[in-house]
Amino acid sequence: MIIGRAAVIKAMEEGKYLDRIWLQATVHGPVIEEIKKLAAQQNVPVSKVPVEKLNSYNVSNHEGCIAQISKIHYQELQQVISFIVDNGEVPLFLILDGITDIRNIGGIARSAFCFGVNAIIIPDKGVGALNEDAILTSAGALEKIAVCRVNSLMKAVDELHLNGIKVFASEMKATKKLADCNFTEPCAIVMGGEEHGVYPALMKICDEQFAIPMVGDFDSLNVSVSTGIILYEAMKQRI
Amino acid sequence: MIIGRAAVIKAMEEGKYLDRIWLQATVHGPVIEEIKKLAAQQNVPVSKVPVEKLNSYNVSNHEGCIAQISKIHYQELQQVISFIVDNGEVPLFLILDGITDIRNIGGIARSAFCFGVNAIIIPDKGVGALNEDAILTSAGALEKIAVCRVNSLMKAVDELHLNGIKVFASEMKATKKLADCNFTEPCAIVMGGEEHGVYPALMKICDEQFAIPMVGDFDSLNVSVSTGIILYEAMKQRI
Repeated sequence: MIIGRAAVIKAMEEGKYLDRIWLQATVHGPVIEEIKKLAAQQNVPVSKVPVEKLNSYNVSNHEGCIAQISKIHYQELQQVISFIVDNGEVPLFLILDGITDIRNIGGIARSAFCFGVNAIIIPDKGVGALNEDAILTSAGALEKIAVCRVNSLMKAVDELHLNGIKVFASEMKATKKLADCNFTEPCAIVMGGEEHGVYPALMKICDEQFAIPMVGDFDSLNVSVSTGIILYEAMKQRI
Repeated sequence: MIIGRAAVIKAMEEGKYLDRIWLQATVHGPVIEEIKKLAAQQNVPVSKVPVEKLNSYNVSNHEGCIAQISKIHYQELQQVISFIVDNGEVPLFLILDGITDIRNIGGIARSAFCFGVNAIIIPDKGVGALNEDAILTSAGALEKIAVCRVNSLMKAVDELHLNGIKVFASEMKATKKLADCNFTEPCAIVMGGEEHGVYPALMKICDEQFAIPMVGDFDSLNVSVSTGIILYEAMKQRI
């Protein structure tokens, strides 16, 4: 944890990765604005909370501001894309939309690392902090793979498009089969949460939809399993 | 829960599926022997426990014997094989060796059902009871798929062999790649636990070993994910 306004600003200026910043709802002023500005630049989620929440951490002098350091190396999407292309690699991204279960995210990170995904893209809201538990469930993969935390998945897809990266979406009702997709080009794959799938507005701007074919009358693979299958198929095409 | 010696015997005679029987360690006699005999015939695990364990269920008159009813429809391996063959289907079995995590078993059951596995074979020891939690994690798949609980996986593999069913084993260090296996014949696939893999003696009597190819320097897919990938590959070959 980083305690106090100046310490939190210093951490961000030094490029430390923060999971989240808690600001007391009633504090204002130029320093608070500075914290919000830096947080926005670095896509660090900021939560406004009652003072009781901050007091509950039992630290003195929090000045209405506490932040949690992250073990994940969050990276900026455009920088990651440029790095991959400069390296002569064909980008493969994984976008997680509405996947909140830490165990699923951990399992997905393991598959992503095993099958050569360059970076996982997650929204800065709606995902639990990728904390010690998440890293443990990922068997350490979350510390090894690039993670891009973005404030809008819509904008992230736009950015991928601008870089000539095709965006596929997994959708159970799609008629195109997984194995009929061409994953050898620069591409990203969007996975939706177990309950609601990919958010409709996001689905709309994806280039292609596909489904994993099944024989059982039961359309419900675990999302971590279906992600593994999709990435396996992509890797098979690429090697 | 079924309480008392006579009730437990009656349940087994009526063909009710039991998850487990707890017997007070100090009770003996012909009725207890009868319970043990029936339990062995039906592959119901029997645990000898101190009387305090039985008292902790707060039931009166347990007579040193309590059993837990199962929601799973346990079936006898040879009967399942005969049924599949009589139906003109090509058997596909999944054998779980040392996979104890209920969430993993749930995820595996979902994949097994989606990809047309005829039955899951599990040992009667070393697996947690396939209880409400397991069924929940399996999204109900465990209630729909046949589960064969056997007292020896070695004997189960012998039985599969006698029925002309080839047994594959997943082994990270194998040189043969998953996609190079022929899963269109009658076959079974053995999955080992995350920590120790397939038990060496069992591995020895399997017909072929294979590995899932990977690109990352990280040989650790989640077992539920790797099972999903293997069954997807088997299904693709079969449809």
